[in-house]
Amino acid sequence: MNIYADNGATTKMSQRAIDAMIPYMAEFFGNPSSLYSIGQKAKEALEDARERVAKCLGCTPAEITFTGGGSEADNQAIVSAAMAGARKGKMHIISSAFEHHAVLHTLKKLAGEGYDVTLLDPGERGIVTAEQVKAAITPDTCLVTIMFANNEIGTIMPIKEIGAVCREAGVTFHTDAVQAVGHIPVNVKEQNIDMLSLAAHKFHGPKGCGVLYVKKGLPIYNIIEGGAQERGKRGGTENVAAIMGLAAALEESCENMQADCEKLVPLRDRLIEGLSKIPYSILNGDAVNRLPGNVNYCFEGIEGESLLLLLDDKGICASSGSACTSGSLDPSHVLLSIGRPHELAHGSLRLTIGADITEEEVDYIIKSVTEVVAYLRSISPFWHDLESGKRQHMIKEFWR
Amino acid sequence: MNIYADNGATTKMSQRAIDAMIPYMAEFFGNPSSLYSIGQKAKEALEDARERVAKCLGCTPAEITFTGGGSEADNQAIVSAAMAGARKGKMHIISSAFEHHAVLHTLKKLAGEGYDVTLLDPGERGIVTAEQVKAAITPDTCLVTIMFANNEIGTIMPIKEIGAVCREAGVTFHTDAVQAVGHIPVNVKEQNIDMLSLAAHKFHGPKGCGVLYVKKGLPIYNIIEGGAQERGKRGGTENVAAIMGLAAALEESCENMQADCEKLVPLRDRLIEGLSKIPYSILNGDAVNRLPGNVNYCFEGIEGESLLLLLDDKGICASSGSACTSGSLDPSHVLLSIGRPHELAHGSLRLTIGADITEEEVDYIIKSVTEVVAYLRSISPFWHDLESGKRQHMIKEFWR
Repeated sequence: MNIYADNGATTKMSQRAIDAMIPYMAEFFGNPSSLYSIGQKAKEALEDARERVAKCLGCTPAEITFTGGGSEADNQAIVSAAMAGARKGKMHIISSAFEHHAVLHTLKKLAGEGYDVTLLDPGERGIVTAEQVKAAITPDTCLVTIMFANNEIGTIMPIKEIGAVCREAGVTFHTDAVQAVGHIPVNVKEQNIDMLSLAAHKFHGPKGCGVLYVKKGLPIYNIIEGGAQERGKRGGTENVAAIMGLAAALEESCENMQADCEKLVPLRDRLIEGLSKIPYSILNGDAVNRLPGNVNYCFEGIEGESLLLLLDDKGICASSGSACTSGSLDPSHVLLSIGRPHELAHGSLRLTIGADITEEEVDYIIKSVTEVVAYLRSISPFWHDLESGKRQHMIKEFWR
Repeated sequence: MNIYADNGATTKMSQRAIDAMIPYMAEFFGNPSSLYSIGQKAKEALEDARERVAKCLGCTPAEITFTGGGSEADNQAIVSAAMAGARKGKMHIISSAFEHHAVLHTLKKLAGEGYDVTLLDPGERGIVTAEQVKAAITPDTCLVTIMFANNEIGTIMPIKEIGAVCREAGVTFHTDAVQAVGHIPVNVKEQNIDMLSLAAHKFHGPKGCGVLYVKKGLPIYNIIEGGAQERGKRGGTENVAAIMGLAAALEESCENMQADCEKLVPLRDRLIEGLSKIPYSILNGDAVNRLPGNVNYCFEGIEGESLLLLLDDKGICASSGSACTSGSLDPSHVLLSIGRPHELAHGSLRLTIGADITEEEVDYIIKSVTEVVAYLRSISPFWHDLESGKRQHMIKEFWR
């Protein structure tokens, strides 16, 4: 059996998205900034895509800037709001401790430039509340940037409420919605969002293409200087083919969203239930308020990398934390932020299932993970010590 | 007849590049940072592409960073060298007045941050010399950034000699080689280049994908913060499909380069010769030291936009200046930099032919441009005044 259960890392492109791209590679390949027909056809396609994307997000086309991906959009949003803040003498930024590195590393750079950054604690449930944001806002706050849904544990923040708090305080609100868009309802107007980042490859679109939404009237500063493309806000020839793929994938995801959720939530809960029977296992993040396809567990006494390699042998693609940091030996900053000790955080498993999964495949995952965890524990001297009482299980109160 | 003569703006993707991309969209779509086989296959492909690109450029794979395009690579190169300079108290940068806006606008931003920028004059031939660079270097110079070939007039700089001057002075040398790579020989080692930018879509690869070459040992600063991809130097999931397309297109262009040049140069010169017969026309940039496919003319009394629209009616895709600035009403900064007066610069035509062009098509272009220029002049009251002696032709000495 071959099961791809790492849709949080990236997704397989849909046929509709591929079909939308192909004509713009060798047929309507013109530069959209060109005057002649082949360029103007590309331009029309680009503006049509912008309109369709805006419709999916609940904003106007002029509020959409196409970028080279979600990370670029995050960087540009945060830098823009920070620079706008500095011009008014406001240099305080509020975020959370478990943001994606595209956000955290940008904030670290800004901190080095004199900004004051407050990172809110998501708590054991892995949810930042509007009350926390409200309490953290000061007269110096120029930006609140809180992710829509966490990329590792899938918890969903009360974005609308956080947005309302920010709007009341007159503070710009950005959300990294890379994991949310295409999977759960996102509407920037209804949810009081001023800036939003998304990446096409998280909802069956192409890699290397993203969107930065910025509410009309808010300043945007370039992080890629160049030509007059994207109203002068992002240099570089527009990646028309990929943008067509992004728009098609977004529309498709939004059309299928309700049906996908109705199918995925029971399967996700079946998976959570099945894995909960593994001794000394614990679900990471709130059980209910989480993305329809996300399951994230810690297993005591397990080393995440071995778990993944043995699951790969069984045809299951999964991850331990996010793909972006997999080169690192450090435990996940997300799991640490919700209070998991280092040793536990090392033994984490993220399964992010897609709507094409079957009940049979979910049961196969449960069976496989159960077997692999038991096997890895059976060969671990550390686990033997735990079982024989020579060592204490780490944190008793964690266990069900 | 349909003739695409705007390859300087963008190129049609080659079938080989498209074929190289497709398998990485829906088959080997895994995230290269993932441990399981489908991710590792993407990782292997990525590293194989890096090796092949490095071979084409004459460097090592570790010196290659994949970016979202040429503009991003230019921005990152310049910002990196500038920041490295500032750390040593060196804040003088040398460039030229006719660089691409990705370079000039980045330099403008740096000038606003306190850097001292010298822009060398390319002169009427449109070529910056090594002597000019040498004379401009001061003990404070941290970076020389001179384009390999100009994007509008196609003139080629003495890159090897400029590189040698920089190396002798211990100054980092970056070249925006977006118009050169794949069209004329580029070898970073032989040509003394420390940093180089390129864009895949200029040599029949995909849009939205570029390369930044940085010589081993030189520091790189991120402009897109994020995950650990590209050795931590560029956040964002690697755009594997596009990178495969880039590598395939680069290899193909390098394989065909000699044959393409042998075919293109005589056709380019035939085009130059044919257009020179139009009265009051002048070739922009050196006639010999220019890209094999580039022809750029000014026609007195002509408005560039009308010229392009009428050529489009005749099936010819061409441009007036670069595509990146076509939204602007300002005359080309490149043509102004080589001494063309405003009025002339407004009447420019860039034809950038590709190796698939035929002699018959070249003759059709000559015939069409000749007709269109004559027609536009025939309906112009301004031209009538010139012809009847009521006004003086702008700059007599320009004309052959």
